[in-house]
Amino acid sequence: MTTTVSPLAPTAFAALPPIEGVRIATAAAGIKYAGRTDVLLMTFDRPAAVAGVFTTSKCPSAPVDFCRESLRGGVARALVVNSGNANAFTGRKGREATEMTAAAAAAAVDASPREVFLASTGVIGEPLDAGKFTGLLAGLAKQAAGDRWREAADAIMTTDTYPKLATRQVAIEGTVVTINGIAKGAGMIAPDMATMLSFVATDAAIAAPALQAMLTEGVAPSFNSVTVDSDTSTSDTLLLFATGAAARRGCPEISDADDDRLADFRKALGDLMLDLARQVARDGEGARKEIQVTVEGATSAAAAKRIALAIANSPLVKTAVAGEDANWGRVVMAVGKAGEEADRDRLAIHFGGVRVAVDGARDPDYSEAEASAVMRKPEIPIRVELGLGAGCWTVYSCDLTKEYVAINGDYRS
Amino acid sequence: MTTTVSPLAPTAFAALPPIEGVRIATAAAGIKYAGRTDVLLMTFDRPAAVAGVFTTSKCPSAPVDFCRESLRGGVARALVVNSGNANAFTGRKGREATEMTAAAAAAAVDASPREVFLASTGVIGEPLDAGKFTGLLAGLAKQAAGDRWREAADAIMTTDTYPKLATRQVAIEGTVVTINGIAKGAGMIAPDMATMLSFVATDAAIAAPALQAMLTEGVAPSFNSVTVDSDTSTSDTLLLFATGAAARRGCPEISDADDDRLADFRKALGDLMLDLARQVARDGEGARKEIQVTVEGATSAAAAKRIALAIANSPLVKTAVAGEDANWGRVVMAVGKAGEEADRDRLAIHFGGVRVAVDGARDPDYSEAEASAVMRKPEIPIRVELGLGAGCWTVYSCDLTKEYVAINGDYRS
Repeated sequence: MTTTVSPLAPTAFAALPPIEGVRIATAAAGIKYAGRTDVLLMTFDRPAAVAGVFTTSKCPSAPVDFCRESLRGGVARALVVNSGNANAFTGRKGREATEMTAAAAAAAVDASPREVFLASTGVIGEPLDAGKFTGLLAGLAKQAAGDRWREAADAIMTTDTYPKLATRQVAIEGTVVTINGIAKGAGMIAPDMATMLSFVATDAAIAAPALQAMLTEGVAPSFNSVTVDSDTSTSDTLLLFATGAAARRGCPEISDADDDRLADFRKALGDLMLDLARQVARDGEGARKEIQVTVEGATSAAAAKRIALAIANSPLVKTAVAGEDANWGRVVMAVGKAGEEADRDRLAIHFGGVRVAVDGARDPDYSEAEASAVMRKPEIPIRVELGLGAGCWTVYSCDLTKEYVAINGDYRS
Repeated sequence: MTTTVSPLAPTAFAALPPIEGVRIATAAAGIKYAGRTDVLLMTFDRPAAVAGVFTTSKCPSAPVDFCRESLRGGVARALVVNSGNANAFTGRKGREATEMTAAAAAAAVDASPREVFLASTGVIGEPLDAGKFTGLLAGLAKQAAGDRWREAADAIMTTDTYPKLATRQVAIEGTVVTINGIAKGAGMIAPDMATMLSFVATDAAIAAPALQAMLTEGVAPSFNSVTVDSDTSTSDTLLLFATGAAARRGCPEISDADDDRLADFRKALGDLMLDLARQVARDGEGARKEIQVTVEGATSAAAAKRIALAIANSPLVKTAVAGEDANWGRVVMAVGKAGEEADRDRLAIHFGGVRVAVDGARDPDYSEAEASAVMRKPEIPIRVELGLGAGCWTVYSCDLTKEYVAINGDYRS
């Protein structure tokens, strides 16, 4: 598997402060990996409000089914995440593993199993032996501490080459609250492994329905606008927890997502999610470059997104970027295949600041040398102007390299 | 570019007999390639009935626009194909190039420009200098002969590693007629190049509307069920010509596609198209294995096709096949992402004759050794049973190898 760190890794990891009411512990249970942690327990001292967004896969994992059920209660006391096994496509045994884990976590924090949230990432189709870590949860709950976000991000990695962390602080009516988030993976990214997971927590006092509304709104331009290989995991899970501990410092308790006092929080949350999502794209398997595809002038935002995804998912666009080739003909191809309205003869395409095509043909002033200079950089902005309307969207992706094929196909060769 | 022939190439090329009324000539015009032919002229001694199917791209090439217009007349006297330049995204100059070519071909065969059909394949976005070959067309028309199908298939290749040819003979009311076909490429398959092209001709006497109905019906399970990299060309063109010359040998003239006398012809035509389409998949860039994905038990044929395409287009499934890994977890993932109805707990998956998963979990009797033996073969059949209905579809694809990335991304590295 990958041993080298992505060249797009951050030069320094964000230092995440403790979130009041959140405690963390990790353990090495030997689920699949040796010599590293693979279980994360996050506990909430008091019942936290919770919101979630999950994979759209018609074949979701057992933990995704479990979380959807728990989410109805809107209250969280514990989160258990394991790496090394996705507990996906595991039938009855998979459901038993989730029930066993939830029961052990509930006992460890003196809560109901329906106040427990679960996520698993790793091999699909192998039964998960939850007995490897359920016995550890009571001890982990006792030793959990607030300053272990980096350890949490490490424990949930699979073939990630670096941990993904982000933090923001923002005031709600003068009281500063913190938002911390961790993430792993991108789409179906790894040999036998799956999943984009992200867990975000805040000490703000926000009711579950309002949290859910903000999460659903924020996921569209962030996690749902990232693609590595167009393959949707069976296990994608994004959870947002609010402990409400900041209320004791004077932070108002807010139950309406449209409350004006949430404006800055909403912006910070969206910003943090985009930060984490881009870290995921920049750690895509074999990635050497980040691709930022912006489509403007579409008939709607949805049309712009669909065209941007067609470009970002195109193997030919992605291999061209890997080859540092400003191959705008492939961008035209991807616009054409997206199925959304497009007028070939109005199309303009930019690589970075260089306009390479305009009015349906090569830009007569286009400089190959300038375009090549753009393509040699680690971030490649591709901008398409359709000239039809006001719809606009940006999608984040990475290049397609031989390393991707090696990581995903070289087991037996 | 690719220099080695695909290991999936046929061991012997089909020998195509002349089709009465069809003559062929090729030339080396130096459009892009040196030392090889790159222009094909096919002439029809008498006006031939014609049908066509084209790319669904919203940004089609100039020749595709031109052919759609010519098709309204339903009559063909000449076909001109060039390789090396796709005349796509070339604006006004592109339209001028098609008009100039059609005028020259029409003059060469004494026909109307609207009885000329055109196709171009190669670089996108570069103006096509039709002057390089329009001057050759009159001479080519004079020297054209019936026994040059292999030369025709050679002239239209771009990064194909072998020419694609197929022929069938079938009786219509006791008169034997011939169907010949050639093809090139698969989807957007090559550096700076595009296009799946196929040209089929018969001496049967079938009116244009009936031809069109049979072509539209036959393209769905053949050319439209082949995918190499999910990228749709701006230039895909399939044309079917019927000279009617067999009428002089007693073959009935048929104008209704539902005429029972066409049953065998229809079957032979479909069979020939599938033959050519599979040759295209087996010559996909970097291909080492053909993947045959069959989905059964879907709620409809359309649902089965959509799921089969999701599997066949998945980079993770394709890299697993390249690695000879019976990774059925990735097949589950692809079923789940297709968006069609699927019940995880009824799913069964077979690689060749080996059932690897059943009832939503790994088959307890599954033999890794037997599955591995299947994966080492050049053809990999993947069969998914959904258990929901009677919908069934088969899609043909190839594996995703480092060679694909090298061909499409290695220009500048």
